[in-house]
Amino acid sequence: MAAPIDFYFDFSSPYGYIGSELVDALAARTGRGVTWRPVLLGPIFKHVGTGVLVDIPLKGDYSKRDFARMARYHKIAFTLPVKFPVGTQAATRAFYVLADSDPALAQRFAKSVFRAYYTEGIDISDPATVVGLAAQAGANGEQVAAAIADPAVKERVKSEVDAAIAKGVFGSPLFIVDGEMFWGVDRMPQLEEWIRTGGW
Amino acid sequence: MAAPIDFYFDFSSPYGYIGSELVDALAARTGRGVTWRPVLLGPIFKHVGTGVLVDIPLKGDYSKRDFARMARYHKIAFTLPVKFPVGTQAATRAFYVLADSDPALAQRFAKSVFRAYYTEGIDISDPATVVGLAAQAGANGEQVAAAIADPAVKERVKSEVDAAIAKGVFGSPLFIVDGEMFWGVDRMPQLEEWIRTGGW
Repeated sequence: MAAPIDFYFDFSSPYGYIGSELVDALAARTGRGVTWRPVLLGPIFKHVGTGVLVDIPLKGDYSKRDFARMARYHKIAFTLPVKFPVGTQAATRAFYVLADSDPALAQRFAKSVFRAYYTEGIDISDPATVVGLAAQAGANGEQVAAAIADPAVKERVKSEVDAAIAKGVFGSPLFIVDGEMFWGVDRMPQLEEWIRTGGW
Repeated sequence: MAAPIDFYFDFSSPYGYIGSELVDALAARTGRGVTWRPVLLGPIFKHVGTGVLVDIPLKGDYSKRDFARMARYHKIAFTLPVKFPVGTQAATRAFYVLADSDPALAQRFAKSVFRAYYTEGIDISDPATVVGLAAQAGANGEQVAAAIADPAVKERVKSEVDAAIAKGVFGSPLFIVDGEMFWGVDRMPQLEEWIRTGGW
């Protein structure tokens, strides 16, 4: 079976959210699986030397308009939260612990985190909120709470982020399939075409 | 008649080049004119606080791959010049002087500048090269040479760049139509859909 698509994103990334709402259908159309790989844009942007998009003069204002326009274009519910961006350590730690035992549950959880933040404005940086979303997705809340506070899980996330940087990951969403990298929701049509055709 | 599309670009921008090869067909399909508005990304990036794309860690390497992949995707000839990026003051000054008297000639000239740089690797920062391309497009070479060296034309370009920044222009290509801004070759499908539908 052909290799899955690696899907890198940060839970606080608007385009990452939009990508998360589109990637399953793309995977179904192309017959590929998807490996969800949440990362932390903080250390990645530090490595790359870029700042937070919405804080950049001119580009920041455009981006806020583009987030919403892109979401509407794809008929995806979206409201930029008042508190934006937020830290996503708790959600990311919870994700990897869940993914180790049940990737499908972890993906349900990931979608619920994105939707809570981008459709209801819920503060997903709050560990208790993350635990609640994990429990709703079917996880054991107490185990997730313990994992979020576990230094070993913190290290696990650091390793995942370091590994992503080593692969060249610099943004969200970013997809890698068959060794080829595609950055951005706007490159998803090319990602799909690449899988269909084997590249150009 | 509906307002034309403002097309902002820098002659040294790979995506600007690709946009320049696609914009006429988009305009024809949507029944709009196009006002070509070359700018200088140097002062714009200084204002915005961003650096040269290809120099950014990780993102730079990806971008170089993406330039070429995007060009092939659209079946546009493209080779990243060895000398990249280059200053585009001479070409931009020549453009505006030509556009004042003959916009069609100025557009032919602009396309020839982009193609010289991105398909033949010709150094378009050289004023003599710019004069030669203008002459080939049908302009009076001596007048263009004088214009490139004219402090008033330098000021004219500065005014155009300042006006672009005042409108929020922060990258290349960037399109404004009916007050709505679209940045990037990858937003051209949305630009077209926006014109067709009146927005969403």
